[in-house]
Amino acid sequence: MKYCSQCGSDRISQSIPEGDNRLRYVCPDCGTIFYQNPKIVAGCIAEWQGSILLCKRAIDPRLGTWTLPAGFMENKETVQEAAARETEEEASAQILDQKLYMIYNLPHISQVYVMFRGEVKDGFASPGIESLDTAFFDESDIPWGELSFPIITEALQLYFEDRKRGQFLMHTGEIRRTSPESIETTRYAP
Amino acid sequence: MKYCSQCGSDRISQSIPEGDNRLRYVCPDCGTIFYQNPKIVAGCIAEWQGSILLCKRAIDPRLGTWTLPAGFMENKETVQEAAARETEEEASAQILDQKLYMIYNLPHISQVYVMFRGEVKDGFASPGIESLDTAFFDESDIPWGELSFPIITEALQLYFEDRKRGQFLMHTGEIRRTSPESIETTRYAP
Repeated sequence: MKYCSQCGSDRISQSIPEGDNRLRYVCPDCGTIFYQNPKIVAGCIAEWQGSILLCKRAIDPRLGTWTLPAGFMENKETVQEAAARETEEEASAQILDQKLYMIYNLPHISQVYVMFRGEVKDGFASPGIESLDTAFFDESDIPWGELSFPIITEALQLYFEDRKRGQFLMHTGEIRRTSPESIETTRYAP
Repeated sequence: MKYCSQCGSDRISQSIPEGDNRLRYVCPDCGTIFYQNPKIVAGCIAEWQGSILLCKRAIDPRLGTWTLPAGFMENKETVQEAAARETEEEASAQILDQKLYMIYNLPHISQVYVMFRGEVKDGFASPGIESLDTAFFDESDIPWGELSFPIITEALQLYFEDRKRGQFLMHTGEIRRTSPESIETTRYAP
């Protein structure tokens, strides 16, 4: 942030506003304070006859790897609508019987993942413009070494564990990058 | 948004970027696209010996009304940390045994509320700078007519219903303003 989006001033700087306790971008000329907040990523673990819908990414980051349909929630929609929209956009698939499944923190990148589970209507999927391919994978065929992000691996692991046990719980936890090479996954107590 | 915060241009306008399907603020001079996304509000329904901790707001909107401790999640924190921090800031209270309880959509104002339940450590609370007062209310003493927002009323109603039944569930739903005078609350199927 180099210029004030309200008055055009080039004197924007970071300071702690009165009554606050965090550094914010503040304009000294018009007084506007610019808050920055975490973003929600919403997506679906969508099943068809026991197989899971994955999308092969056509965009960076992680182009060519496999992911669950998910993306940034937009203003004026619900988390449920965001997850269904992303599934439609990335895989042309409709999600039925959508149920809340996970809320996971990725604090190092200020993201919160909200994942749902459900069924793919008619088992129909086809790549949208952000996907190179879509496919349904049995648990034994999941390309674990070619998944896009640690949160995708965690979501699929939780899902298969729950399915094996015959009971889907609501999960919460965090994935944190602890160094450039390592991430740490913590499942919070239910 | 009147000026580009990257290059200072005053030609910012709303348009649909290539490959997108929504209006965004776009700078025609440097090409920056400015995305706007929903914000998370995190808070706690915190109990001490059966009574619920409420805070009397010292700030607008709804100054002087009673609310649950809650506020905007900050970058680099978890939802759990945000809810605990807000409880500390607004009521000087520590939350113990914090459990995920609700995720509610307020799409008309692009907010998602994530509420937790738990116990107040030692039953200690005292107003922070955003509160005029803090108090513990028995269910029969809740000031229903003086609560700050419909989401606070909904959270307390769900909580007392669950407590009566002896089973706390995870809840999701939405509160939508359908006209200047009316709001509509929808509890999604569990």
